[in-house]
Amino acid sequence: MNDQAPWVGIVMGSRSDLETLGAAREVLAALGIPHEVRVLSAHRTPEATMAWAEEAEGRGMEVIIAAAGGAAHLPGVVAAKTVLPVLGVPVVGWSLGGLDSLLSMVQMPRGVPVGTLAVGKAGAANAALLAAAIIGGKRPEVRERLRAWRERQREELLKQSEEE
Amino acid sequence: MNDQAPWVGIVMGSRSDLETLGAAREVLAALGIPHEVRVLSAHRTPEATMAWAEEAEGRGMEVIIAAAGGAAHLPGVVAAKTVLPVLGVPVVGWSLGGLDSLLSMVQMPRGVPVGTLAVGKAGAANAALLAAAIIGGKRPEVRERLRAWRERQREELLKQSEEE
Amino acid sequence: MNDQAPWVGIVMGSRSDLETLGAAREVLAALGIPHEVRVLSAHRTPEATMAWAEEAEGRGMEVIIAAAGGAAHLPGVVAAKTVLPVLGVPVVGWSLGGLDSLLSMVQMPRGVPVGTLAVGKAGAANAALLAAAIIGGKRPEVRERLRAWRERQREELLKQSEEE
Amino acid sequence: MNDQAPWVGIVMGSRSDLETLGAAREVLAALGIPHEVRVLSAHRTPEATMAWAEEAEGRGMEVIIAAAGGAAHLPGVVAAKTVLPVLGVPVVGWSLGGLDSLLSMVQMPRGVPVGTLAVGKAGAANAALLAAAIIGGKRPEVRERLRAWRERQREELLKQSEEE
Amino acid sequence: MNDQAPWVGIVMGSRSDLETLGAAREVLAALGIPHEVRVLSAHRTPEATMAWAEEAEGRGMEVIIAAAGGAAHLPGVVAAKTVLPVLGVPVVGWSLGGLDSLLSMVQMPRGVPVGTLAVGKAGAANAALLAAAIIGGKRPEVRERLRAWRERQREELLKQSEEE
Amino acid sequence: MNDQAPWVGIVMGSRSDLETLGAAREVLAALGIPHEVRVLSAHRTPEATMAWAEEAEGRGMEVIIAAAGGAAHLPGVVAAKTVLPVLGVPVVGWSLGGLDSLLSMVQMPRGVPVGTLAVGKAGAANAALLAAAIIGGKRPEVRERLRAWRERQREELLKQSEEE
Amino acid sequence: MNDQAPWVGIVMGSRSDLETLGAAREVLAALGIPHEVRVLSAHRTPEATMAWAEEAEGRGMEVIIAAAGGAAHLPGVVAAKTVLPVLGVPVVGWSLGGLDSLLSMVQMPRGVPVGTLAVGKAGAANAALLAAAIIGGKRPEVRERLRAWRERQREELLKQSEEE
Amino acid sequence: MNDQAPWVGIVMGSRSDLETLGAAREVLAALGIPHEVRVLSAHRTPEATMAWAEEAEGRGMEVIIAAAGGAAHLPGVVAAKTVLPVLGVPVVGWSLGGLDSLLSMVQMPRGVPVGTLAVGKAGAANAALLAAAIIGGKRPEVRERLRAWRERQREELLKQSEEE
Repeated sequence: MNDQAPWVGIVMGSRSDLETLGAAREVLAALGIPHEVRVLSAHRTPEATMAWAEEAEGRGMEVIIAAAGGAAHLPGVVAAKTVLPVLGVPVVGWSLGGLDSLLSMVQMPRGVPVGTLAVGKAGAANAALLAAAIIGGKRPEVRERLRAWRERQREELLKQSEEE
Repeated sequence: MNDQAPWVGIVMGSRSDLETLGAAREVLAALGIPHEVRVLSAHRTPEATMAWAEEAEGRGMEVIIAAAGGAAHLPGVVAAKTVLPVLGVPVVGWSLGGLDSLLSMVQMPRGVPVGTLAVGKAGAANAALLAAAIIGGKRPEVRERLRAWRERQREELLKQSEEE
Repeated sequence: MNDQAPWVGIVMGSRSDLETLGAAREVLAALGIPHEVRVLSAHRTPEATMAWAEEAEGRGMEVIIAAAGGAAHLPGVVAAKTVLPVLGVPVVGWSLGGLDSLLSMVQMPRGVPVGTLAVGKAGAANAALLAAAIIGGKRPEVRERLRAWRERQREELLKQSEEE
Repeated sequence: MNDQAPWVGIVMGSRSDLETLGAAREVLAALGIPHEVRVLSAHRTPEATMAWAEEAEGRGMEVIIAAAGGAAHLPGVVAAKTVLPVLGVPVVGWSLGGLDSLLSMVQMPRGVPVGTLAVGKAGAANAALLAAAIIGGKRPEVRERLRAWRERQREELLKQSEEE
Repeated sequence: MNDQAPWVGIVMGSRSDLETLGAAREVLAALGIPHEVRVLSAHRTPEATMAWAEEAEGRGMEVIIAAAGGAAHLPGVVAAKTVLPVLGVPVVGWSLGGLDSLLSMVQMPRGVPVGTLAVGKAGAANAALLAAAIIGGKRPEVRERLRAWRERQREELLKQSEEE
Repeated sequence: MNDQAPWVGIVMGSRSDLETLGAAREVLAALGIPHEVRVLSAHRTPEATMAWAEEAEGRGMEVIIAAAGGAAHLPGVVAAKTVLPVLGVPVVGWSLGGLDSLLSMVQMPRGVPVGTLAVGKAGAANAALLAAAIIGGKRPEVRERLRAWRERQREELLKQSEEE
Repeated sequence: MNDQAPWVGIVMGSRSDLETLGAAREVLAALGIPHEVRVLSAHRTPEATMAWAEEAEGRGMEVIIAAAGGAAHLPGVVAAKTVLPVLGVPVVGWSLGGLDSLLSMVQMPRGVPVGTLAVGKAGAANAALLAAAIIGGKRPEVRERLRAWRERQREELLKQSEEE
Repeated sequence: MNDQAPWVGIVMGSRSDLETLGAAREVLAALGIPHEVRVLSAHRTPEATMAWAEEAEGRGMEVIIAAAGGAAHLPGVVAAKTVLPVLGVPVVGWSLGGLDSLLSMVQMPRGVPVGTLAVGKAGAANAALLAAAIIGGKRPEVRERLRAWRERQREELLKQSEEE
């Protein structure tokens, strides 16, 4: 294990996706998971994207989170170049309410999977939680932090319920 | 690590989903990943479903694949009871062409993620490949088998292309 | 009959659904139907949710109204643990305009029904009216109050029409 | 209570819906709930439809199940003329896969509710189960039969699961 | 012919539809077509709605325009009680962007037609133009006014184009 | 009035639409409404289509029914060249289940209306009934035949209902 | 070659589409491609539209970009009258989020193609880039400018990525 | 110009797309346009795909047609590596009726366009016709063949119409 390296690589198709992905970064920070963030495009910088994806494993990354809008090919193109697990976050684009990016990720044909989360910030936060669940398979301390996070979430909601 | 235990638990809402999930079982077998298969329902057998999910980690499972059709709550209910990574496979139900089960899985609200794959057999095969990618983080031999599987897939397609 | 107990239990997946459900509470109040409101989650507090659902009948409740957004599993999970009638109110979530929560409720597979109303406030008001219709089967005074409410609604609309 | 009368009235827009509604009739028969079946149309026989709806309460009916396809107005028109609870079953019509009948039922505007079930046979069976849940509020023997039915369903699924 | 009577009856399910229908009223006024406007509901005032529809022909009306949102049954219920041509204008409701009201009108089953126009104000204006086209079959002066209106529209657009 | 001329012109984009439009032709024949049928395309024979549309009024036609699939521009192009009422019948094309042809007709922008009926044969039959309702404004004998047709339809359904 | 003439003709159904098409004009200007802009309607000015389309080739145009909203027939009607390549830009109309205009363009039946781009401004910019790619087949200097534009785009994104 | 080289490159994600693309090959053959066909995948053989795309211009190709189903990234990945015009043909995949592949192509973000045709065979034939229109800009003989093809199509339809 490479504890210096980022364990999660977050890649997005445009700087405008940064706001959506803030929800993922907060969760990763709360769980003590080092990560790096890159703006790369499946179409405008395909070689850089594929090089980054190809090197991710060797650089010690364990999970990749990729977000994009519209015809959202970024997670699929990244997944084509790595055997690391790739998670996709559809971003609401300029029209059609996110259905386009959702289907462009989740309907990956047989052979190269993208584990897809919900459209937008909820999906970004959940991508980070799923990354933690995956990393937890190898790193017991991450699993315990995730367990504690989940327990805190449960308690907060129960408190809300009682206050009602 | 518990090498006797199944590493992947496959759960489905109805025996009629078995055909769809055959595509997942074939891939897991090809990659040497032991797995168990259960028919359980989020609505008709909620306690058994939740008990199975809760015990999965202790029994040595590393990833869960859950498939269902219609208002497909099974992956979400399983995910509520485990910190293992949960992958969802939407099955085409009796109407609406699978859009209902897809949205019922992928749009999980913030806090409990389900990594969702494509509707039907393509998604089932990809769930197995993503499970292998996840397990590969801890088990190098699985990662290498996945890498080899991906390479064979690449070569077969290239051969097809040349034959054209 | 237990006239002290709430006759209707309203449960929602998040405090942010309170505004939508205000439309249900107003109608129940207007019809003299005591009710309780709880914030519970199918995924973050599954045991509390199921315990609440399981105890509802014994506590004298007669109908349950459950509201949620996104992959809206709450009504289905509640329905799994009670033989009381369960009504679902889809809430517009963070994307896809409510189609996700609608399909996640209405497409319940055979065996455990959720009677689903319209997306949002119209559906919340109607869930209360349908609860009144159900309770009216046993409590004639509720049926008469509902009849009078419907009559008033009719007259108000007719007056509007004349004013045109 | 009028034990001679049908407790449930099933109404459908066309004889071709009979096959779909067979699933409802089987469940009602299994639960010992007397019912009547009528073919009536919101558009072709509006007076007969409204007269039937208006008389349903006086004739001892406790719940109405209405099924139709396409622009499926039947449940709404029936609900306009009764304070009994009305449940809707969308039928797959001649195009658009049932989305048209689903939205034509579930999106009822504020004031006159239709509790809508899933498209097709699953929805028809569930309408009967929800009718039983409603009737069970007044008739304890129906509630117990429903509880037993649910329990049998649970056991059958568990047995399936073990056989796997 | 009854030149005193309104030739077009406009009916809407809610006063909130008045703004949408303003586009129809302007076109009718511009074409010199007398009309009346009523707020009536297929569900809350079914008898008044049906009585109005039934009397329309005898009162000299020649075309009916009906607008509603959500599960928009008003045009269908009106069409059930008259042999006059009925035109439907789907109004964007409280969710789903008007797809619900569009399908609730246009997918009328065989036997009772509703000629459906576009969602919202464009559809309202076009309903008035189609009503004029229909009335023009009997009243040559309306046809000529419509022809002139169309010609003016053509010229205005051509002028715009030249100015570009 | 020109009683020799066809009163209704039916135009379709492809001979393969003939089967769908058979439902319209049967209704027109049953109501004694002379009609002509043409295969013309908005894209492949635009001049012939527009010439036919432009001459329709002078040839004595009173209503036009236009049917097409896919990006169904035929009714709109015909409507651009006539002040006669134009009715559209969306045909299920080669994909997307008729949603494409429905939206291509019904969403006509302000200025040139197409009164759109349901997708497929139900819509074709209803286009003929709406044409009869329109023609009935000028020809009382057609109105009476339509009234009788509607009455027979009502009686047949009532008989079906009794037989149940 | 006619270097004085506009090489690209941009046509739109309404002046309100000008803002969307600004994105196309900027790209064409940046690539040194002369173009003309016209407001023409498939329905309100069909003869002028068809005349413009028919003359485009003779006037030296090499590609046509057509944009419209709702039932967007403009690109199809233009394509019917020219053998030049026609590109379509769906504009978000007054409802349904652009799905109507998208399907009205892209689903053109066999025989007369419209190469369709994304809904809105992204599609407008891409229509200009695709026009440049087409023109570049004959004009090497345009191809080189496009290559340079693509290269600059790549470098800008890479710089953004580094700054992260 | 390189008259030996294929002028059109057809690439598809799977051999199963060959049947759909037969419609394109027939049109290209009829118009005397040499083409080559390759099976390549954006995900399984990304390097080979990108190498083929990158070399296409140098090998004398003038237009690329790319077809795929599901999350159809192939046309976008090809377009990322060439300044030739790229046309996309969505293929109906294993679920969702082609809406997934359509949106995955047409909604390409700003910067790298894919001119998208209709789903399935109609789109394949039209891609070939649009390719011919593009090639015709440089090769007058192709433009004339396309003009003649269009004229024949027009005459055949007119003959059909007369035979009616």
